[in-house]
Amino acid sequence: MKRLSDIGEDALIRKLLKGFPTGELHTGPGDDCAVVDPGRGRLRLLKTDAIVEGVHFLPEAPASKVGWKAAARVLSDFAAMGGQPEYLMVTVALAADTPVKWVEGLYRGFRRCLEKHGGTLAGGETTSVPKGSAAVISVAGEGSVGRRELVLRSGGKPGDVLAVTGRLGGSIRGRHLSFSPRLAEGQWLGKMGARAMMDLSDGLAMDLPRLAAAGSSGFELEAGLVPRSRGCSLKEALSDGEDYELLVAIQPRKWQRISDEWPEDFAMLTRIGLLTESGGKLDGGWEHFSGRVASSGRPSN
Amino acid sequence: MKRLSDIGEDALIRKLLKGFPTGELHTGPGDDCAVVDPGRGRLRLLKTDAIVEGVHFLPEAPASKVGWKAAARVLSDFAAMGGQPEYLMVTVALAADTPVKWVEGLYRGFRRCLEKHGGTLAGGETTSVPKGSAAVISVAGEGSVGRRELVLRSGGKPGDVLAVTGRLGGSIRGRHLSFSPRLAEGQWLGKMGARAMMDLSDGLAMDLPRLAAAGSSGFELEAGLVPRSRGCSLKEALSDGEDYELLVAIQPRKWQRISDEWPEDFAMLTRIGLLTESGGKLDGGWEHFSGRVASSGRPSN
Repeated sequence: MKRLSDIGEDALIRKLLKGFPTGELHTGPGDDCAVVDPGRGRLRLLKTDAIVEGVHFLPEAPASKVGWKAAARVLSDFAAMGGQPEYLMVTVALAADTPVKWVEGLYRGFRRCLEKHGGTLAGGETTSVPKGSAAVISVAGEGSVGRRELVLRSGGKPGDVLAVTGRLGGSIRGRHLSFSPRLAEGQWLGKMGARAMMDLSDGLAMDLPRLAAAGSSGFELEAGLVPRSRGCSLKEALSDGEDYELLVAIQPRKWQRISDEWPEDFAMLTRIGLLTESGGKLDGGWEHFSGRVASSGRPSN
Repeated sequence: MKRLSDIGEDALIRKLLKGFPTGELHTGPGDDCAVVDPGRGRLRLLKTDAIVEGVHFLPEAPASKVGWKAAARVLSDFAAMGGQPEYLMVTVALAADTPVKWVEGLYRGFRRCLEKHGGTLAGGETTSVPKGSAAVISVAGEGSVGRRELVLRSGGKPGDVLAVTGRLGGSIRGRHLSFSPRLAEGQWLGKMGARAMMDLSDGLAMDLPRLAAAGSSGFELEAGLVPRSRGCSLKEALSDGEDYELLVAIQPRKWQRISDEWPEDFAMLTRIGLLTESGGKLDGGWEHFSGRVASSGRPSN
């Protein structure tokens, strides 16, 4: 019998969503957010995401940081579409012996994140899990984006410049609980006409092939250019994951202007490679990248 | 140290949401759904909800019924506002050794529920929980309702007729996994000008005091009128919970017409009592109801 551990998340989601009608959606499952077109005005972005104790945070993590992370992950997905947060809802599934103070801390962190980055809490729900079960914090949210500012994961074309915000790797040392979603950067890139974008949650080594595949492209990564967090090896920068930085594809003719006008108070933007016709190549010679590109097909969000 | 088990869900949510700005919301947390006013056209309904293995379903429950229930619970909340479902997103947190077939079954049930009752799946997300942890299925959704058809939980006034759809009690024998959300009934009641409404998830004994308190009213329940499922005692009908029927308050002058014109293909509508100035009274003499009314304050959703 096939179990979830035998099948990747991308393949699973593809399998599960097969046959679901998505006709009414502007953009269905597979991007960082689903996109709904209300007919006029801004497009609406829909997103759901969950973090799990023992998987995305340790039991001893400060509750307020867990709350921050739960909110910031969803905000990062809005950023990746060029959008802004509007309404968020949080569902907390916790054991009955959880201290009330812990849940209060969680909400405090959640609130701080919205106060800093935008968004209104529209609903909260609590439910219990059996004793000994991991806590699950699920966040669902709605954002919005101007029609001309929307950036899909699938918009990249061969020749586009690939760039990332910030520095990659080493998130596990603490940043994964306190990162800033790149909302201003994402919105600005949307306005400037970036062609494809996603946020880096599983690491560049997993996510870059997804972005390329979503636009039916290949890629060339110049490993020496990848901006690494202090003390991180290239391998860590590519594979640690949970960077929550933006990976963006930009038309060559727009790159110079975007690079020149990049606001000083933004996280830095670094060119790291190119989209190509096909295949995946890292100049360090990580041949298995090619395999990943070939098999990744429709990306998960 | 206070733990979640020492504090009711209503009190907890009240505590957690204190101070969160809800100014931009038409209706904030505390009703079956949050309501957003986009400025023109229909109002938007936002809802999130989760079901947990060992709490809301047993490990041996058929996966497709679990998926149905996860979707139907959220649809039932849209029904309780007089609304209809639009977009749903599902987040599944499961152990890695869960059979793929189980998740496929879950999505199949989810899909059947949307096919029958409306709504588009806008996103799916899977994540893992540590081995031995309970599965959590979280559903977030967006619905809509016409401005004049919106029914809040808080709209009841003393003198209003209280009524319920369907029959109460005994849901645990199977109906809790296969119930029909009362969307047609809720929408019709909204059009006919029902004054307050909610769906019965925790049982009439818990939920009626919430509806009354939300409108700063008391209530009188005529126990003999409560429509019971076959073989259920009054106590079971009041306390079993998970009925997912609608509890509605209707102006006396509208009751006759609603009762006369109630469509034949709807679940039956039964008058069960009245909203009053204050207090809570069940003609069987369940005095503890009064206490519940006094302490329930702002209801949870």
